[in-house]
Amino acid sequence: MVYDCNYRVYYYDTDRMGVMYHAGYLKIFEYARTEMLRSEGISCGELERRGFIMPVTESYCRYLKPAAYDDLLLVRTRVEELRRASVKIATEVRRGGELLCSGYVRLACVDSAFRPVRMPEDLKNCCEKFLTSTEN
Amino acid sequence: MVYDCNYRVYYYDTDRMGVMYHAGYLKIFEYARTEMLRSEGISCGELERRGFIMPVTESYCRYLKPAAYDDLLLVRTRVEELRRASVKIATEVRRGGELLCSGYVRLACVDSAFRPVRMPEDLKNCCEKFLTSTEN
Amino acid sequence: MVYDCNYRVYYYDTDRMGVMYHAGYLKIFEYARTEMLRSEGISCGELERRGFIMPVTESYCRYLKPAAYDDLLLVRTRVEELRRASVKIATEVRRGGELLCSGYVRLACVDSAFRPVRMPEDLKNCCEKFLTSTEN
Amino acid sequence: MVYDCNYRVYYYDTDRMGVMYHAGYLKIFEYARTEMLRSEGISCGELERRGFIMPVTESYCRYLKPAAYDDLLLVRTRVEELRRASVKIATEVRRGGELLCSGYVRLACVDSAFRPVRMPEDLKNCCEKFLTSTEN
Repeated sequence: MVYDCNYRVYYYDTDRMGVMYHAGYLKIFEYARTEMLRSEGISCGELERRGFIMPVTESYCRYLKPAAYDDLLLVRTRVEELRRASVKIATEVRRGGELLCSGYVRLACVDSAFRPVRMPEDLKNCCEKFLTSTEN
Repeated sequence: MVYDCNYRVYYYDTDRMGVMYHAGYLKIFEYARTEMLRSEGISCGELERRGFIMPVTESYCRYLKPAAYDDLLLVRTRVEELRRASVKIATEVRRGGELLCSGYVRLACVDSAFRPVRMPEDLKNCCEKFLTSTEN
Repeated sequence: MVYDCNYRVYYYDTDRMGVMYHAGYLKIFEYARTEMLRSEGISCGELERRGFIMPVTESYCRYLKPAAYDDLLLVRTRVEELRRASVKIATEVRRGGELLCSGYVRLACVDSAFRPVRMPEDLKNCCEKFLTSTEN
Repeated sequence: MVYDCNYRVYYYDTDRMGVMYHAGYLKIFEYARTEMLRSEGISCGELERRGFIMPVTESYCRYLKPAAYDDLLLVRTRVEELRRASVKIATEVRRGGELLCSGYVRLACVDSAFRPVRMPEDLKNCCEKFLTSTEN
């Protein structure tokens, strides 16, 4: 299963090249994976209160075409790899049929002292639902 | 006394109008007042460890002329008003002789539970040095 | 008439005080006024293509209570003052019944050379719909 | 040759985990590579006026340890690969002896219509000076 949501580009996302600033895609990735989890009843704020934090340990983006101001983007998110204490989440950003940016982040599951811990059951189950080795 | 420092405009500061995004000036204000305090030996990180936090309670900016990518800006900061548990800090951003933006923030002094507390002596003394009612 | 929309707080909005960074409210204001205009068929991207740009010339915020990570905020926007070549737009950010931040921006209407121009008729009509002197 | 500069962490860089937000490292990378070029007389603003734009086409970061508020970071930048119309620039961010983040971006050289063009001679010569296959 994949998770689709939309993102609208505002002035604060763009830079003077007239297009979305490259680091901003990582914010879109955060937005999209948070909503993916929320769609299955997992709130990252609630996870934190239970003592689980998910810092990003790795990120990668390929920027193929620029997104412009006011564009409505389609953001597709899926889980590419799932381990005991980490997860790799891949995201693609499209406008119409065009792929603008694709990438991934790897998140660790840690406790409040930033020590790796096994993911809680509900989070793991949720990630399994979105585990999709290829995009189709 | 006033405190002067420089700020260089990068792509991440600009938007598709080709100029500095307006909210970014508040970041420049934070940078400049932090360095103003540091120039007198006050570290905001150290203040925090002693239990004093300085949230912004009010901000105002007038944007007169746009700052462009790669501009080297002169940022002038001074304390405009000093109270027991709050301080109003004014900042002007110039390029050469031109005034681009002027504004202020008001900061409260609070404890870790966000309750107002009297400013510590060293911070108060530092603010007094930069207390200047008019810009000259 | 007022325009209401929601904004969710993500990690990228927060700072190490654990709450929304103060400059981020100006981004919420931009998001909300853009959607207010869009709700009446005005697209800022389309205005730009017709040669009208709306830079922010003034901003003011009062930060009353902090917004926390994962909060769902209610953002209420209205036009407070409407002139030939500028508009003052007020925004309030609430969580449940609590007012967290209120403020305004003033926007000029300029051409591509940043010269003030009279607002186009459709934009003016749209602003008039949201012209509300008090919050009620 | 490598290029070293410093970066101070402010509130606007941090998130509610209390540490530098991961996307912010890409801004540090931009800051550092811009200053690397400037140290050899190349201004990106000037390149733009001559018709050369350098969009980021790929980015990668590994986040090893968190940077905290008020940390003074050492940022080391070098050119890892140099082609006719693109360059791969690697950056490491340290605090004292500790490596916090390492990564790279690939930049294309394009004209104002975003078509790939051969890098101008002065930019190419500058990149060659910082071409270092390994970090030592």
